[in-house]
Amino acid sequence: MKLTETHRHALQDILQWRRDVRHFLTDPIPAETLERLRAAMALAPSVGNARPWRVLQVTTPALRQAVIANFEAANKDAGTIYTGEKRTAYNALKLAGLRDAPVHLAVFTEETPDEGHGLGRQTMPEMLRYSTVAAIHTLWLAARAENLGLGWVSILDPGGVERILDVPDSWTLTGYLCLGKAKFDDDTPLLAQKKWQKNTPTTWQDI
Amino acid sequence: MKLTETHRHALQDILQWRRDVRHFLTDPIPAETLERLRAAMALAPSVGNARPWRVLQVTTPALRQAVIANFEAANKDAGTIYTGEKRTAYNALKLAGLRDAPVHLAVFTEETPDEGHGLGRQTMPEMLRYSTVAAIHTLWLAARAENLGLGWVSILDPGGVERILDVPDSWTLTGYLCLGKAKFDDDTPLLAQKKWQKNTPTTWQDI
Repeated sequence: MKLTETHRHALQDILQWRRDVRHFLTDPIPAETLERLRAAMALAPSVGNARPWRVLQVTTPALRQAVIANFEAANKDAGTIYTGEKRTAYNALKLAGLRDAPVHLAVFTEETPDEGHGLGRQTMPEMLRYSTVAAIHTLWLAARAENLGLGWVSILDPGGVERILDVPDSWTLTGYLCLGKAKFDDDTPLLAQKKWQKNTPTTWQDI
Repeated sequence: MKLTETHRHALQDILQWRRDVRHFLTDPIPAETLERLRAAMALAPSVGNARPWRVLQVTTPALRQAVIANFEAANKDAGTIYTGEKRTAYNALKLAGLRDAPVHLAVFTEETPDEGHGLGRQTMPEMLRYSTVAAIHTLWLAARAENLGLGWVSILDPGGVERILDVPDSWTLTGYLCLGKAKFDDDTPLLAQKKWQKNTPTTWQDI
């Protein structure tokens, strides 16, 4: 299929207005929207066509609460590496929207799938996890195109989350995601707005 | 910005017609197109807004040849895990377009960036590499929207590529990419067409 300027400009808008969202409205997400997001995620690239991502939608209140406690402990520990103004700045950042987001998705990688028959991952076994990351990013863009926000919570003890959700031994946590309507829209990363880290130049160098 | 059905359908087309391309035309890619791809890649999410990806465009023939030799050795080794029909099938697959693709991009992760000040990666340090993967996937989709194909070559000894390209010790290889015009278009993965691995169902499970 020959793609057009319309495709290019649409992708540009989606990329430019995608944010890591931590401020959510509590409005529920319709099941048919979630199904469209699942189907979009299934179009992600994967090594050996193995599709190693395993997605749990965490709805049980006690499980969500246990994940929130895991985040809060990890975030408290994380704050201790900073001193002075940087510590004050860290503590003032809102780094997760776990309490308000209507949808929690725990995304794991099956580390020993039969699918793919080992192709493409003998010298770089991390390609399975990288496939899951590409699937998460696909979901992120598809959500933004539905005017939904996604936040990736990485301030977690992943082993703890695996135990809370009692997943098979061959699954490892790749990303814990919050999904819902964002409270506000922006085309600049929140960490740049809050002066934690500005956008630095990215260059390609010839060799 | 409120996105529309046009955005959603455009993204759907891009996702559906994105392939891992191994069959390239040798036509060069204009510099202004590469610059648009670099700018699109800079819109990828990154942990702590650290933007840890470092991109080398490999143009020197001897360096490209050394990477090809690295791939060929790794691919020969990889084939030895299969027996019988599966080995014949493996050997018949074309798994990289390194000889024809006009552009080779070696994408590394800076594992110790100052940027981001450590935010979001204390319990999951792999988030830096995952940020680079999201950037590669962003590039992939942006390339498809320009009617260009990208192939991710993971059958490589990554340490060997780091030595060939003589990168800083703090850089690790995340992906080696071929970029160019694809010889043909498809909305089905080549490994599914070639009956190596069909598309398996992906489900979301409530917990």
